[in-house]
Amino acid sequence: MRTLAQDVPKQLDREVEVSGWVHRIRELGQVNFVLLRDRSGMVQLVFNEKIDFTPETVLTVSGTVKANEKAPGGAEIHPSKVEVLARADINLPVQVNQDPDKYPLEVLFDNRFLSLRMPKIRAIFQLQSSLLKYLSDFMRQEDFFETKTTKLVGTGAEGGTGLFSVDYFENKVYLAQSPQLYKQTMISTGLERVFEISHAYRAEKHDTPRHINEYVSFDVEMAFIESDQELMEFEARLMDYVFTQVGEKNKAELELWNASVPGPGAALKAPIVGHDEAKDIITKVTGKKVFEINPEGERALSDWALANHGVDLVFINDWPRKKRAWYSYPSADGTKTLAFDLIFRGLEITSGGRRINDYAMLQDALPKFGMTEEGLGFYPQIFRYGCPPHGGFAIGVERLTQKILGLANVKEASPFPRDRKRIAP
Amino acid sequence: MRTLAQDVPKQLDREVEVSGWVHRIRELGQVNFVLLRDRSGMVQLVFNEKIDFTPETVLTVSGTVKANEKAPGGAEIHPSKVEVLARADINLPVQVNQDPDKYPLEVLFDNRFLSLRMPKIRAIFQLQSSLLKYLSDFMRQEDFFETKTTKLVGTGAEGGTGLFSVDYFENKVYLAQSPQLYKQTMISTGLERVFEISHAYRAEKHDTPRHINEYVSFDVEMAFIESDQELMEFEARLMDYVFTQVGEKNKAELELWNASVPGPGAALKAPIVGHDEAKDIITKVTGKKVFEINPEGERALSDWALANHGVDLVFINDWPRKKRAWYSYPSADGTKTLAFDLIFRGLEITSGGRRINDYAMLQDALPKFGMTEEGLGFYPQIFRYGCPPHGGFAIGVERLTQKILGLANVKEASPFPRDRKRIAP
Repeated sequence: MRTLAQDVPKQLDREVEVSGWVHRIRELGQVNFVLLRDRSGMVQLVFNEKIDFTPETVLTVSGTVKANEKAPGGAEIHPSKVEVLARADINLPVQVNQDPDKYPLEVLFDNRFLSLRMPKIRAIFQLQSSLLKYLSDFMRQEDFFETKTTKLVGTGAEGGTGLFSVDYFENKVYLAQSPQLYKQTMISTGLERVFEISHAYRAEKHDTPRHINEYVSFDVEMAFIESDQELMEFEARLMDYVFTQVGEKNKAELELWNASVPGPGAALKAPIVGHDEAKDIITKVTGKKVFEINPEGERALSDWALANHGVDLVFINDWPRKKRAWYSYPSADGTKTLAFDLIFRGLEITSGGRRINDYAMLQDALPKFGMTEEGLGFYPQIFRYGCPPHGGFAIGVERLTQKILGLANVKEASPFPRDRKRIAP
Repeated sequence: MRTLAQDVPKQLDREVEVSGWVHRIRELGQVNFVLLRDRSGMVQLVFNEKIDFTPETVLTVSGTVKANEKAPGGAEIHPSKVEVLARADINLPVQVNQDPDKYPLEVLFDNRFLSLRMPKIRAIFQLQSSLLKYLSDFMRQEDFFETKTTKLVGTGAEGGTGLFSVDYFENKVYLAQSPQLYKQTMISTGLERVFEISHAYRAEKHDTPRHINEYVSFDVEMAFIESDQELMEFEARLMDYVFTQVGEKNKAELELWNASVPGPGAALKAPIVGHDEAKDIITKVTGKKVFEINPEGERALSDWALANHGVDLVFINDWPRKKRAWYSYPSADGTKTLAFDLIFRGLEITSGGRRINDYAMLQDALPKFGMTEEGLGFYPQIFRYGCPPHGGFAIGVERLTQKILGLANVKEASPFPRDRKRIAP
């Protein structure tokens, strides 16, 4: 029976069998050391004979566990039997046992089948797997249903630009930019509280460290809320739960990236600032006049939140109507919206708000945005048959991963990123 | 503070506030009854005045809870305050308080924003939400990582037919039929054990009760397994876990559909029959000579399993090589494969098996299937740098939902199904 690398030190002086990839070979002549890597970590193998395999070869090794202070975990294996399961080419386009920083991102992406083996890069996706769990766990504790809505949409319902088109039998359809209209439909059907974790697509041409053309969107929508305040409070609790879990259970991944998360309770102290106030704060921090809250402004606002509220997390609400989507619920005077963004460590990771749920209000709003009811397909129907007040938000899973670990580029948080030029691997 | 319908009977003689949709109105003149529906169930409201709203209107109602044996849950509310949150049109294209069977499927799909409100239909997606949880929970208990791999693939890697094409900037890409090649890549990178729940796409033209063009695929892949036996044992344990959870926690949904799941331990007794043996059994059951295991054969085999092994679940393995994908691991003599299907209640819900992990074996296999290494893009590379023995399987989430509840058509298990003709809502 196989023992994982992390459990080897518990088996001192016993026989074990381990399997994994050859991470590093150190040949000293009389005695040779091999570091074997599996999903749990590393274990040192000590050979007195010549090594006849190269790095990244897959082995199953039986042997006796011996204490050695200098070995990882304080133990090593003296092999009695070595089986080569799969040999690796001698020439590796990426050295798995090197630091990823040694390679340009494009090389790491081109050779994803090797770069994903680097412990530091693998940690990104071990953390991401945990994030998917923590996000889902919280939603289920809060009595939400998980849904999976179609990604093939007949119309460009969120505005019509930035969509990829799909040849669908005799029709042309589009890849959904977000489940926005479908998650609203689901809450209106009486599920009331839904979340979805699915891919979303943006046909945006810009190539920046914060954009990616295919991403994983964690979407939330809930009925019977009337203010953006309720949504922000809910999201602050969600973030607090996620950060607390990461802090407790993902220490190894955080350590590899020299990263940390806001401590328990910190996210609950995230300030909420109105859009105008946010611009004032940015001016105060940067000394520059602010017309738009751009990436530089988001970073300044984040710095301000950390300095003044002890947490690198800040909500911006009270957005001018023209700056938000047509489905945003307007303020009483019609100039602003009950919509918000959440900035985490200088990056917008969430967009959310209350949505229009009244048919007459929707009919009034559409022309203001140059839109028609007909252009929206089935969607306006959901407001004709009793749609409760509701709202929600979305978190980009790659952006959340990026900001927790401090990755320079959001694409690093996607195992197989897609950008304007990259469609492989 | 809002009380859910299901909790109203616990508040006898107290004041409560409930919110929901008007499910049914019974006007008797002096006294009028309204059944209010929320995500948790129904509660009866008793009015002494005339009702000025119609079915599907959204209300928030405050009032006193009174015991009434004839009301659902043994209690009803005598309202003191009624707020109309959103009115519904008088003309409903689908009557939510009727049985879905009264309407053709196409009408239910055309009016999804109403038909999803029918308690029986909503139950499908409440169960599906639970299934997503049970499947994920089991995998995480078994030390698997959750991944989200790209759905935009540069080549039709699983054979090239049945793909939808996407205009991706200056390139043509395809919607992934399955995460097959990417989940194999992920295990080869040292995550070792991965699962993914994502959409998958098949551009198949046939319109049958078992096909759908966009579906949710639950995918599993694990390294360091050498036989299909290990995979089938694993899947039997997974199914047993899921069925046991459903049996305990989804009684309400099962009851609405008059459905049941195999009891605890039953899935572990699922027989494994070889492909040839399966054909013999089908012949014995149906009295017909069998050339292919077709849907009729799958049903016959299922009946046989239920009669002889006490469970409506049967694995078929030892498939002839020509009938399985090129990446299936061949048997020692090269004529068969270490591949299997799982039939549940007469329907194939799983395809799985060990995969080729040896580069030379892959190079030998490809021409047999009329394929080339070049046509597979990056994929053959994963076998050049140490790829352990591995295998996995996939479960169609809609098919599993369909078979648990006994739905006639798999499309009923998708909130917004896509078929050759349907691209809306």
